[in-house]
Amino acid sequence: MNEINFVNTYSSLTSDEIIAKEKSNMDEKRFKHCIGVSQTSRKLAKLNNYDPDKAALAGFIHDYAKQIAPERFIKVIKEQNFDPNLLNYNRAIWHGIVGAYFIEKELKITDPEILTAIRRHTTADVEMTTLDKIVFVADFIEPSRDFSGVEEARKIAYANLDDGVGFELAHTLDFLITNRKKIYPKTFAAYNKWSVKD
Amino acid sequence: MNEINFVNTYSSLTSDEIIAKEKSNMDEKRFKHCIGVSQTSRKLAKLNNYDPDKAALAGFIHDYAKQIAPERFIKVIKEQNFDPNLLNYNRAIWHGIVGAYFIEKELKITDPEILTAIRRHTTADVEMTTLDKIVFVADFIEPSRDFSGVEEARKIAYANLDDGVGFELAHTLDFLITNRKKIYPKTFAAYNKWSVKD
Repeated sequence: MNEINFVNTYSSLTSDEIIAKEKSNMDEKRFKHCIGVSQTSRKLAKLNNYDPDKAALAGFIHDYAKQIAPERFIKVIKEQNFDPNLLNYNRAIWHGIVGAYFIEKELKITDPEILTAIRRHTTADVEMTTLDKIVFVADFIEPSRDFSGVEEARKIAYANLDDGVGFELAHTLDFLITNRKKIYPKTFAAYNKWSVKD
Repeated sequence: MNEINFVNTYSSLTSDEIIAKEKSNMDEKRFKHCIGVSQTSRKLAKLNNYDPDKAALAGFIHDYAKQIAPERFIKVIKEQNFDPNLLNYNRAIWHGIVGAYFIEKELKITDPEILTAIRRHTTADVEMTTLDKIVFVADFIEPSRDFSGVEEARKIAYANLDDGVGFELAHTLDFLITNRKKIYPKTFAAYNKWSVKD
C-alpha cells in the first residue's frame, strides 16, 4: 500500500496511520521531500553505525509541522511556555522546535531521541547527537534538493557526517546573510562549533 | 610637526604625546591606517551631527593596542577579570575589547564614550552610540582600505550611518564564514540588529 513501512513506529499508531497523518498534513511536494529525507537518513545511519529504521522514521516525520497554520504555532508557543523570543521568528524556525510538540501530540511519538532530532533539524545546535546530525544533513542533501553546491554537500556528508553538518551550517548562514535574513542564535553557536576550521 | 593635532585630548597627555605614543606602538602601515580612520571619523561625524574633533581622536586611537604582544593581552584578560571566553579568541578581537584597557592606562583617556567606541570597534554590538558607529564604519571604509565592495560600503555609509553598520556586519560575517573563521557572539547579535532587512 505504501512504498514505505516502519516496523517500529515508537508510537501507539501503526505505520500506515503515521504515514496517512503525515500525508494529510502537507502538500505533495513536501511529502515527496519527507520520503527523500527518510531514505537519505537511512543511508547516513548505515554509514554512521546508527539504527537505520529509527533514522528513516525521524527523517520521514521531520517536516510534519512545516505547513501547520502559523496561528496554531503562535497559540502553542504562548500556551506551552516556549521561549517567547520564538514569536520574533516564523514557521521556518517553528516547525522544528515547536513541531516536536505537534509530533508528540498528533503522531504520539514520545521517544526523546527522535523529538530532539526534530527540534534541532532547522536550527542545529552546539550539542548534536548522531540522529540529530543525520536528520539535519539528510534534509539538506536528499535527492530532490537542487541548489548550487548540493553535490559538494553530498560528497562531504557521505564521507564524514560532522563535516556535512559544518558545510551545511556555513552554506545556510552564507545564504541568510546574503539575503539579510535574521538568524536564530543557536544556529550561530552551532556554526562556531561545527563549521570553524583553525 | 604633526599633520594632526587634537585640541582636546580627553587626557592629561598632550596631543603630541598621544600621537608619539600611538606611533611607537605600531608599524608605519598601521599608523597610516589610524590617520585614515581619524579623517574618515571626522567626516562621518560632520554628516551625523557629532563632535568632529572627538570622533577624530577616537578614530585615531582605535587600533592603539592592535600590535601589543598577545602575552600582554592574556595577562590583562586574566588579571583584570575580563570574560575568560576571550582567551578562545585572538588579537583581532582583543585589541578592541581589551585594547580600551591599554588606552586608559597608557594614553590616560578615561572618557567613557571614547572607551566604549574602542571596545565595540571590532565586534560591534546590539547597542551602539553614534560614536561607536562612526569608528566602526570609518575603520572599514577609510581611504587606504581596498577590497571588493569598499566603494559600495563608502556610498552606503556616507548616505546613512546605520546602513553602513549593517552593510559592514553582513560583509564581515560573509568573509568570516567563507573562510570558516570563528565569530564572536556579539557580532552575530549585532548582525541581527543592524543588517537584517525584512
